[in-house]
Amino acid sequence: MADTPTPAYSVRIRVRMQNEPGMLGRLAIAIGEVGANISALQGFEVKTDTLDDDLVVNCSSEAHQDQVRAAVEGVEGVEILEFEDRTYKMHEGGKIEVLPLAPVRDVEDLSMAYTPGVARICLEIAKNPAAAHEYTIQKNTVAIVSDGSAVLGLGDIGPAAAMPVMEGKALLFKHFAGVDAFPICIRTNSPEEIIETVLRLEPTFGGINLEDIAAPGAFEVEERLDAEMDIPVFHDDQHGTAIVTLAALENALKIVGKDIGSLKVVVAGVGAAGVAVSKILMNAGVQNVIGCDRQGAVHTGRSDLNASKRWFAENTNPEKLTGLLTEVMPGADVFIGLSGPNLIGRDDVVAMAKDPVVFAMANPDPEIRPELIQDVAAVIATGRSDFPNQINNVLAFPGIFRGALDAGATRITENMKVAAARAIAATVPPAELAPDRIIPSVFNPEVAPSVARASADAARADGVCRH
Amino acid sequence: MADTPTPAYSVRIRVRMQNEPGMLGRLAIAIGEVGANISALQGFEVKTDTLDDDLVVNCSSEAHQDQVRAAVEGVEGVEILEFEDRTYKMHEGGKIEVLPLAPVRDVEDLSMAYTPGVARICLEIAKNPAAAHEYTIQKNTVAIVSDGSAVLGLGDIGPAAAMPVMEGKALLFKHFAGVDAFPICIRTNSPEEIIETVLRLEPTFGGINLEDIAAPGAFEVEERLDAEMDIPVFHDDQHGTAIVTLAALENALKIVGKDIGSLKVVVAGVGAAGVAVSKILMNAGVQNVIGCDRQGAVHTGRSDLNASKRWFAENTNPEKLTGLLTEVMPGADVFIGLSGPNLIGRDDVVAMAKDPVVFAMANPDPEIRPELIQDVAAVIATGRSDFPNQINNVLAFPGIFRGALDAGATRITENMKVAAARAIAATVPPAELAPDRIIPSVFNPEVAPSVARASADAARADGVCRH
Repeated sequence: MADTPTPAYSVRIRVRMQNEPGMLGRLAIAIGEVGANISALQGFEVKTDTLDDDLVVNCSSEAHQDQVRAAVEGVEGVEILEFEDRTYKMHEGGKIEVLPLAPVRDVEDLSMAYTPGVARICLEIAKNPAAAHEYTIQKNTVAIVSDGSAVLGLGDIGPAAAMPVMEGKALLFKHFAGVDAFPICIRTNSPEEIIETVLRLEPTFGGINLEDIAAPGAFEVEERLDAEMDIPVFHDDQHGTAIVTLAALENALKIVGKDIGSLKVVVAGVGAAGVAVSKILMNAGVQNVIGCDRQGAVHTGRSDLNASKRWFAENTNPEKLTGLLTEVMPGADVFIGLSGPNLIGRDDVVAMAKDPVVFAMANPDPEIRPELIQDVAAVIATGRSDFPNQINNVLAFPGIFRGALDAGATRITENMKVAAARAIAATVPPAELAPDRIIPSVFNPEVAPSVARASADAARADGVCRH
Repeated sequence: MADTPTPAYSVRIRVRMQNEPGMLGRLAIAIGEVGANISALQGFEVKTDTLDDDLVVNCSSEAHQDQVRAAVEGVEGVEILEFEDRTYKMHEGGKIEVLPLAPVRDVEDLSMAYTPGVARICLEIAKNPAAAHEYTIQKNTVAIVSDGSAVLGLGDIGPAAAMPVMEGKALLFKHFAGVDAFPICIRTNSPEEIIETVLRLEPTFGGINLEDIAAPGAFEVEERLDAEMDIPVFHDDQHGTAIVTLAALENALKIVGKDIGSLKVVVAGVGAAGVAVSKILMNAGVQNVIGCDRQGAVHTGRSDLNASKRWFAENTNPEKLTGLLTEVMPGADVFIGLSGPNLIGRDDVVAMAKDPVVFAMANPDPEIRPELIQDVAAVIATGRSDFPNQINNVLAFPGIFRGALDAGATRITENMKVAAARAIAATVPPAELAPDRIIPSVFNPEVAPSVARASADAARADGVCRH
């Protein structure tokens, strides 16, 4: 897949080396010769005649891992003790666990957390349903719901194969915003059945984060659940991406010195994310959005459009451009890719207007690799954590839900989304703005609290809070 | 509800007392005079003229808590700074949280736990579905599924009000057996819809623990899910209770010196638990079981029986006894209550055969309170943690699932249940058996591992393991 060595394909190699000068150097040269990087040395241990060491080596594919293994084996005086794929190792047994918040040390604890004491809390909730948001995990717990029909850039891989992504998301919810999140992968692709299932689960959760559900079904699922549930519902692929894209674009425009109202923006991919991104950009002042799907530009003259694309055609592409993506790219100020790998070429970017802004957000492989256009694009962003300017939903969803739960919000409103985007953009101080720094790091500890405050304040202002 | 002070109704009272001799004594007397117990003193802090202290006081009801408050307020020189219901306090925000098992410290971690690395694990599972049991939370995670239709002794309180019980259960799964468990409370009472919902959630979980679903629907739910799912399904109200009851009865019979084949056993309550307990007892050698519902003894002459009770009538009550519970109790060796509070009186127990064994397991309030029959019953057990001999499912379910997950079992077989019961009974050494010690403490750390080993071994012997 990738050509550049990445931690995603990293291995941990425990080697035993003859304890003689230059040994580690020869080993490093051998690994370098097959194009891999040693990113860390760990667990150094000196024996009498030998040294044991853990090498962490970034590779670019599984085949490359094999090459690295062969290269290490080929160094005289080196023996491989363990060879472990670090990504697989990290996933063993899953990535989240469910831990007690109440102690279970003795009969007294059990009498309160379980029978007979727990019956008091049950009866309280039966009498006063709102108490569930105070005395159960509803207070802090979000379901990450997917049918696995549009996972990353991988497509319809099904609910079981989608679990590692949803677990990863749960990890991020907790790490960045202290929100307890639990994956709910549902075996059905029917929007009606997804809606029915999630409605039945409402008593368990305090919020619903929809994830990686294919368009146009995803729109129906979100709209219906938002209308029928008394807890916040958020389709992250749409709104998380839209929020962070708006934050990134606002900061990118400061760098290229263009006005949002004058932009020509080409959006490749008119699925869940493409539609939501286009909507939030138009709400923010973009006049000229052209969406493209596999058949090319979406315009009112096409007869092959579903309801969502029909709406899109009627509300975008004011010049009624037609033709394939590569035919509408010339003169564009901004390219936003929400589709699949290697969709555009360097020539397409060269043909854009001065100072092209390229957001190539397909995951795991972008529409164009940044290194191919570094000299021609003014600002480049991707969806990947191993390039600069990662347009990563994690900047939005933990804080949005933190704010919604803190405020007792029963919905996520449009104002909450816009407030979140502004809060994200504001965490990059003007003095620090640079072409490779339009978006705060996902590890910037200010982001989630700032988004949470903005989202909670907007919820209160919109009057959608339970208390 | 209860007449005896219990931690379930305990309060924490932070008081400020004049720093003078005898102060704490006068306070303790005032609390004792209204029938409450100080169970602990915490957080003692001396100021200049005053002392601050936390009193933990067990009460018997909410009204009793108010009496205690008034009594404390009535002591001169004492001021109440805080007055907190400890059971409510323990439940604030829910009793479980979802925590990361993988680090999220830097871009490298994210590249493995999330994009792009996570895509490798997704694709592996898409190609090889069994890998989900290795690389997702399926490996160690059980859903605790309820519709809230038969919660403890409280009846149909609904799914939201059932959450505190399911959370408590999750606490116990993790604490006693390291099993990650998550509550899934479903808003429907239709067995068909519960089945449909749980089947759709199969990609998320490694096991299904059904809980507090009313009979006879619960039977259908369990049978269908057991038949249609490739992961273990266990209705705890039936089989957890049955396993621990069998373990308790085997040890009780050693005390009263009776043979299992000669017993007359009256079972009050022919719901999910009553049927399962009767079945496991008959499998273990009991010949004469008489079940009673609100209409009295279940016998083949009755025309008001549903399918499950019809089966029950045809397979129990060999003497075809008729009449109300109190009419069939005389001469019984064993009473097993799985119904509701205060169902029988002392006279009923007096009328039983010599050395009556009384398992009064209704929760939270037993069919008869143990203190009323301590002098006439040979062995008494209840479902409560604040009396001796608690017939508590927690002795069974954590270990059963631990064993099933460890062995990669796709089902919970009858042999696994029987093996679990024997493992539980065996943890009370013959020398330690006593009327108030027929069941191991739920805090006995040997129980869950022992049950897990027995259950895993039985699964392997039955050939139901995935690997």
